[in-house]
Amino acid sequence: MKVLHLSDLHIGKSVNDFNLIEDQKYMLEQILGLIKSRDIDVVLIAGDVYDKTVPSEEAVRLLDYFLCSLSELDVETFMISGNHDSDERLHFGSALFEARKIHICAKYDGHLYTKQLSDGFGSLNIWLLPFVKASQVKHFYPDEEIRSYDDAVRTVLAHAEIDPSERNILAAHQFVVGKSGDPKTGGSESAAVLSVGAVEKTGADCFDDFDYVALGHIHSPQQIGKETVRYSGSLLKYSLSEADNEKS
Amino acid sequence: MKVLHLSDLHIGKSVNDFNLIEDQKYMLEQILGLIKSRDIDVVLIAGDVYDKTVPSEEAVRLLDYFLCSLSELDVETFMISGNHDSDERLHFGSALFEARKIHICAKYDGHLYTKQLSDGFGSLNIWLLPFVKASQVKHFYPDEEIRSYDDAVRTVLAHAEIDPSERNILAAHQFVVGKSGDPKTGGSESAAVLSVGAVEKTGADCFDDFDYVALGHIHSPQQIGKETVRYSGSLLKYSLSEADNEKS
Repeated sequence: MKVLHLSDLHIGKSVNDFNLIEDQKYMLEQILGLIKSRDIDVVLIAGDVYDKTVPSEEAVRLLDYFLCSLSELDVETFMISGNHDSDERLHFGSALFEARKIHICAKYDGHLYTKQLSDGFGSLNIWLLPFVKASQVKHFYPDEEIRSYDDAVRTVLAHAEIDPSERNILAAHQFVVGKSGDPKTGGSESAAVLSVGAVEKTGADCFDDFDYVALGHIHSPQQIGKETVRYSGSLLKYSLSEADNEKS
Repeated sequence: MKVLHLSDLHIGKSVNDFNLIEDQKYMLEQILGLIKSRDIDVVLIAGDVYDKTVPSEEAVRLLDYFLCSLSELDVETFMISGNHDSDERLHFGSALFEARKIHICAKYDGHLYTKQLSDGFGSLNIWLLPFVKASQVKHFYPDEEIRSYDDAVRTVLAHAEIDPSERNILAAHQFVVGKSGDPKTGGSESAAVLSVGAVEKTGADCFDDFDYVALGHIHSPQQIGKETVRYSGSLLKYSLSEADNEKS
């Protein structure tokens, strides 16, 4: 099964008052072409779908177009919310979209969303963890010691019944650090990301049960520790400081 | 086939700073119960679904709940936008919702939306006309003389191939007047509706080809001219001036 990992689309974003919607549409069309030419089966969108919690009408129209196009290509699409998204707005329609192979997990409800796919190699479990803060997880597990985002993510994963004998893929939107330190930020992440505190970091080792972790949040494509824990990077270069960066 | 006609839900509305969302949820649940107990087959929602072009998160959540519930009841739901709705925002997901029997026409695209249903009595055509201004229709028919909303609606209908030998139902959101004059406003319509000019009125006789016309816009339930051209009225009394009005 071929999986395409996307994140940080930031649909509707402007940079220095320059509206990027046409560039974003062009890029999403390139991606649709790639899904077709490479026979992609599964598309993961790891958060920050929109740039704003209240997206503009043209941003709403572009996401609608992209989701419809993905559905027409008959791929299984999985999407989570990032810190830029409104959980509630991104959640709209999600139950009805399931019939069209669009799976959205925009609100953490105390359980890690999972859906089982299968192919000739057996089961493939897709797990979706929308962006969560420590307090959101604490709400569902008041008796657990949850002080940091790391505690929060570990608590969520500890309560999910992950069978490591099967293939497991997770999409998440967090600031994930490896043994060698912080990820390399692109420069266009929000100020809170660029000056993140220890309490908001999640250790990559908590993902050891997964065969692949599709991360969103950091705009530079990179692996965190091992090759199978990765940020895809953002759809476009979203700040002038990224002009010389490579996109994946 | 049993058809339920709703309109002017104005989800998310506050009256005098009093948030009505819980009352609206209660009413929508009553409606869901009625759909079940009366074996309703078709639900028409004739515009002003939301109260605001940018609905609140709780309004988005309530509409999502209502649409999911309708889909679970396996009824065919048809919904148009009113002047309070953002065409673009209400349109989101509509192509994907079709698979779940939710049919939304939020943007007039030059053609009158139609879908054919059928039962033991033959074909039943549902036609959907979202709220349109004269300029919106003129955009698609630049050579036609369209100066008023009446011209606009007549132009739209003239270009639709309506077969009067079949059963035809239209949902529309306009200020429709009969021979005996204007509809009786409830009082909670927007200021523009309460002081509507001649250019914004549509004559009820343009709907003669339809067996039933499910109107939205005016908050008092009433028939316009004949019994089969009706405003359902709003979901709740949306102003103090309506305290003594009857709801249908």
